[in-house]
Amino acid sequence: MAYHNQPEIAKLGAAHLFTPDLEKSLWFFHDVIGLEIVARTETKVYLRAAMEREHHSLVLEAGERSRLDHVSWRVRRPEDLDKFYTQLTENGTEVAVQAPDAEDGYGESLRLQMPSGHKLRLYWDVEKPAVAEADRSVLLNQRYKSWNRGIGVRRIDHVNLWSTHEPEPVHQWLTDNLGFKLREYVQTPHGRIGGWMSVTPLVHDIAVMKAGPHETTPARMHHLAFWLDNAADVLRAADILVEAGIKPDQGPGKHGVSQAFFLYVRDPGSGHRVEIFSNGYLIFDPDWEPVEWGVDDIATALAMWGPTDYIPHTDDHVMNTTTEA
Amino acid sequence: MAYHNQPEIAKLGAAHLFTPDLEKSLWFFHDVIGLEIVARTETKVYLRAAMEREHHSLVLEAGERSRLDHVSWRVRRPEDLDKFYTQLTENGTEVAVQAPDAEDGYGESLRLQMPSGHKLRLYWDVEKPAVAEADRSVLLNQRYKSWNRGIGVRRIDHVNLWSTHEPEPVHQWLTDNLGFKLREYVQTPHGRIGGWMSVTPLVHDIAVMKAGPHETTPARMHHLAFWLDNAADVLRAADILVEAGIKPDQGPGKHGVSQAFFLYVRDPGSGHRVEIFSNGYLIFDPDWEPVEWGVDDIATALAMWGPTDYIPHTDDHVMNTTTEA
Amino acid sequence: MAYHNQPEIAKLGAAHLFTPDLEKSLWFFHDVIGLEIVARTETKVYLRAAMEREHHSLVLEAGERSRLDHVSWRVRRPEDLDKFYTQLTENGTEVAVQAPDAEDGYGESLRLQMPSGHKLRLYWDVEKPAVAEADRSVLLNQRYKSWNRGIGVRRIDHVNLWSTHEPEPVHQWLTDNLGFKLREYVQTPHGRIGGWMSVTPLVHDIAVMKAGPHETTPARMHHLAFWLDNAADVLRAADILVEAGIKPDQGPGKHGVSQAFFLYVRDPGSGHRVEIFSNGYLIFDPDWEPVEWGVDDIATALAMWGPTDYIPHTDDHVMNTTTEA
Amino acid sequence: MAYHNQPEIAKLGAAHLFTPDLEKSLWFFHDVIGLEIVARTETKVYLRAAMEREHHSLVLEAGERSRLDHVSWRVRRPEDLDKFYTQLTENGTEVAVQAPDAEDGYGESLRLQMPSGHKLRLYWDVEKPAVAEADRSVLLNQRYKSWNRGIGVRRIDHVNLWSTHEPEPVHQWLTDNLGFKLREYVQTPHGRIGGWMSVTPLVHDIAVMKAGPHETTPARMHHLAFWLDNAADVLRAADILVEAGIKPDQGPGKHGVSQAFFLYVRDPGSGHRVEIFSNGYLIFDPDWEPVEWGVDDIATALAMWGPTDYIPHTDDHVMNTTTEA
Repeated sequence: MAYHNQPEIAKLGAAHLFTPDLEKSLWFFHDVIGLEIVARTETKVYLRAAMEREHHSLVLEAGERSRLDHVSWRVRRPEDLDKFYTQLTENGTEVAVQAPDAEDGYGESLRLQMPSGHKLRLYWDVEKPAVAEADRSVLLNQRYKSWNRGIGVRRIDHVNLWSTHEPEPVHQWLTDNLGFKLREYVQTPHGRIGGWMSVTPLVHDIAVMKAGPHETTPARMHHLAFWLDNAADVLRAADILVEAGIKPDQGPGKHGVSQAFFLYVRDPGSGHRVEIFSNGYLIFDPDWEPVEWGVDDIATALAMWGPTDYIPHTDDHVMNTTTEA
Repeated sequence: MAYHNQPEIAKLGAAHLFTPDLEKSLWFFHDVIGLEIVARTETKVYLRAAMEREHHSLVLEAGERSRLDHVSWRVRRPEDLDKFYTQLTENGTEVAVQAPDAEDGYGESLRLQMPSGHKLRLYWDVEKPAVAEADRSVLLNQRYKSWNRGIGVRRIDHVNLWSTHEPEPVHQWLTDNLGFKLREYVQTPHGRIGGWMSVTPLVHDIAVMKAGPHETTPARMHHLAFWLDNAADVLRAADILVEAGIKPDQGPGKHGVSQAFFLYVRDPGSGHRVEIFSNGYLIFDPDWEPVEWGVDDIATALAMWGPTDYIPHTDDHVMNTTTEA
Repeated sequence: MAYHNQPEIAKLGAAHLFTPDLEKSLWFFHDVIGLEIVARTETKVYLRAAMEREHHSLVLEAGERSRLDHVSWRVRRPEDLDKFYTQLTENGTEVAVQAPDAEDGYGESLRLQMPSGHKLRLYWDVEKPAVAEADRSVLLNQRYKSWNRGIGVRRIDHVNLWSTHEPEPVHQWLTDNLGFKLREYVQTPHGRIGGWMSVTPLVHDIAVMKAGPHETTPARMHHLAFWLDNAADVLRAADILVEAGIKPDQGPGKHGVSQAFFLYVRDPGSGHRVEIFSNGYLIFDPDWEPVEWGVDDIATALAMWGPTDYIPHTDDHVMNTTTEA
Repeated sequence: MAYHNQPEIAKLGAAHLFTPDLEKSLWFFHDVIGLEIVARTETKVYLRAAMEREHHSLVLEAGERSRLDHVSWRVRRPEDLDKFYTQLTENGTEVAVQAPDAEDGYGESLRLQMPSGHKLRLYWDVEKPAVAEADRSVLLNQRYKSWNRGIGVRRIDHVNLWSTHEPEPVHQWLTDNLGFKLREYVQTPHGRIGGWMSVTPLVHDIAVMKAGPHETTPARMHHLAFWLDNAADVLRAADILVEAGIKPDQGPGKHGVSQAFFLYVRDPGSGHRVEIFSNGYLIFDPDWEPVEWGVDDIATALAMWGPTDYIPHTDDHVMNTTTEA
């Protein structure tokens, strides 16, 4: 059997976002969301959360338009980068090799594009910067102090992408080429409107959903999610956002899909949507069968309780979250 | 100075609700909300919450139409009942004396009507039934075991009434006749749309809000509220409701007014709206000045965060919550 | 009946603490506990919590030894100050009148001493300083932004005093002279070891407990308590304390008495013990009968669950929390 | 490279416990902990939690003495059972093949013993019984209704074993033979006193700790852990336990190791210790380096905050949790 030698993705690494107002976005992600700054240049800031060891989980870059540049994924073993190169190329995906970048802490990496137009990057080597003693947690298994600032998210969790293409073939491509397993999906008579996929026991490291009918930009990001340990922490986040002058976009509420307790909010500098979330569940079963939510269950799938207005084809939800095709 | 001899109300005692489906309402309030049954007759059930010592805080009575019959209030001292009789009568309010009722555990009580048409009852004597040992909490300051069943609310908190009359004179009547202090109110150029009032340090034991323009029934109940100790408990309540087949009406969210973390749900037997709530704040200042929320602050007043669709003049919120004038 | 004209106490106002290390104590109460600084002189700092309107709820004063100077209480009506003067003096308590103090925001106040040796102050007039716009909450019913810094306690809650005298006569004195109602107490064959008393619906605004047998200082403070809205917030407080290098003294746990979910911690500058607490319950019944916890229930009274090692006669708990007689 | 073809363990499946009082243990695990009964015989009961799809995660079997019989683990792929047989046998571990068992829902399985004397079982085939409609969650990704009964744990989490042998070689054996990765460990000058290991992103699926010096039974279980989604849920569990007449053993508190928010309690029927826990963190890094807690950090490792009395060599903690060698 071949699959034993297939390369694997270990985890979501980082999202790279462009923002037309870098200072305001930095204020939002650093002061309000509570990410820590690892490095910055004139046009870019690298940030990570309290629990994270790698160089960064978020890059903010100044740019004319707000867009998701790419999503980075760490492979499971050093040799998986080469294997992915071979496998992807043989399967017809164009792959560019990017030389190590002293600035972002990555070694050699691969660049490729999903059939939906979203851009991905794969890497193995990555710096794991230490933390100055003043900021260091008393917990040896944690980088920065808990509750250091603002909401104090614990780690990046997942990305949720929007596509004008039918999502089902995109899901299949993610399975065939990168090994993502479909965990849950919503099916209507008109097709699959979204799928939640992972390589980890999280219900999703990535989701790909169908964009609304009036959408012209083929590849967007719906949201980037950060994790908190308790639902109560998400409620505290809502207070902090409003006190900072930022009205949450939607929530709090509970998705049936993935059982996420969620709160959505837009970065006021860029319009990128961030999900502050907790709860959910983990999948340890190696033979998990994808959960299908049909038309009768779609209301529960999208909102077991809480707001019911974020059905994903409402066009005005997508402005300012464009990814270039 | 006269006020030292004025009678005072000590606390909200109970709400008496009519329901066209007593069995379903009983299932809702007992099995799902988690109230305990103290007594029942063929047409009535008396219930109370785990922390409550008095005979009941809720009466469910079988009736053709769903309506709030009356709200009961305990006076502060035995002699206050007589004093209220004199004071109210002198001020032009008709008061009926009701003889002690073996069934409901009350001694002699007074019956009267607010200018909005809502009916009130005042009492001093009340039975405080003991609890069977099997149900008794290990805590000597608590009646029933914690988390005994369903949501497990801790105590009644307040009633929120709707009126087609202008609320401001109703608020004034409550202050002049019953000593309720105005704690917060929402003011628009078209008048006051709601006021939150209390005799206790709670921000409100009672609220009176303006009903929508198409409302024909002059006196309704907006909701009856029960307390939980933590916001996290309200989130658990949302799960329990949905698992019981009952979609919450609105929420969870946080009102600016009173800082309540709330979840609204309808009793499926009667349509009466119940608020499951926690957090909020207490007022100990004897010279508290009412907080005015004006047009610029109304969005925050009604929803600091969470759902924004419960603005109180939406007519379809009021069906099935009628109180007879 | 006389009591209608008796003066009443409305609420706990503030605690005035001496500390041998003002800077460290200020760091603890401001940076870690999250109180806001209202005013400071060379030797004193006035602080209050986010929900508080009065000038301060805590005074820290530099002094050689750590001790509780006095506890301030607001009376219910302007004329109650005079009435208390008369009533206390007639009952044999020495009362000193203190002129208005521009520094601490109080008008004229009364100074007196409890039979246990603890010093009290009564006041009516008090400044209610506004908050600079940058710090102001979006909530019109709240002074400072929520979650502004550190633990972010919401308000002062109560003081717990220790005495080498028998507590029962002290409780009686508090009832007879200041109107405190006994809410709960712990009784052993050797006497009452503690009583929890209030003028508000809180189970206690003040508690007086028996000091250990080896105690030589007659009047100490066991702890000063601050409120948080949720038990989950107390757990977050524990994280913050440890990250700040301060090991909590005891807890988290739940007292049966008052149902408090608690965490004790010492101010590293002074040794004064602070209780971070939430939950509990409110007493609205005007005819509440004090709850007696006897020898069979004492374990539950002191710790329904959580640490069992804070039984109040352990002598090493009291060091550094002395009040001068 | 060989490791691609090595068999792998996917997840912890179940613990099989003997109890001298099956009815009381069943009451504890079903009524109080909230597990669901899947099947029972005269001497055995099979239970699982709301989120679990496999036949059971706990077997209670009537027996003279309280002991852990064995722990079951699911392998990652069907062929891994054969591969494990070969690999273990070649490495000198005796492995018995157990025929499929209609009663417990397992297909063919392997039986083996750890060098510490603890017994393990490996399986691939397992029944995944459906749930009767009345008990079924509205969530399609969940088996039973949320908050169905008692504490309502969500899933089994890990087992913590005690050994009189040095733990370090046991940890090494688990790595070499079964692929468990060491995630965290506590090291003293006298040796390693415990190691936390996993095949999943959980910090531990299994821990092996050093038993106290007076321990004569070589292989015991320290505790069996069940997961709740929020720290607040663990506090509710403490209330429920005390109301059921069961004093928690230790906690609540937070371990530095694994960042677990924990509460320990003994099954009153058997003395087996159960951990109710939440929070913690997940490890997605494929090159995670084990976190070493040394003598200076041991207090934080075992109790970041909360009780400090559960240092693992206290002999009286281990009674009634014996596993036969």
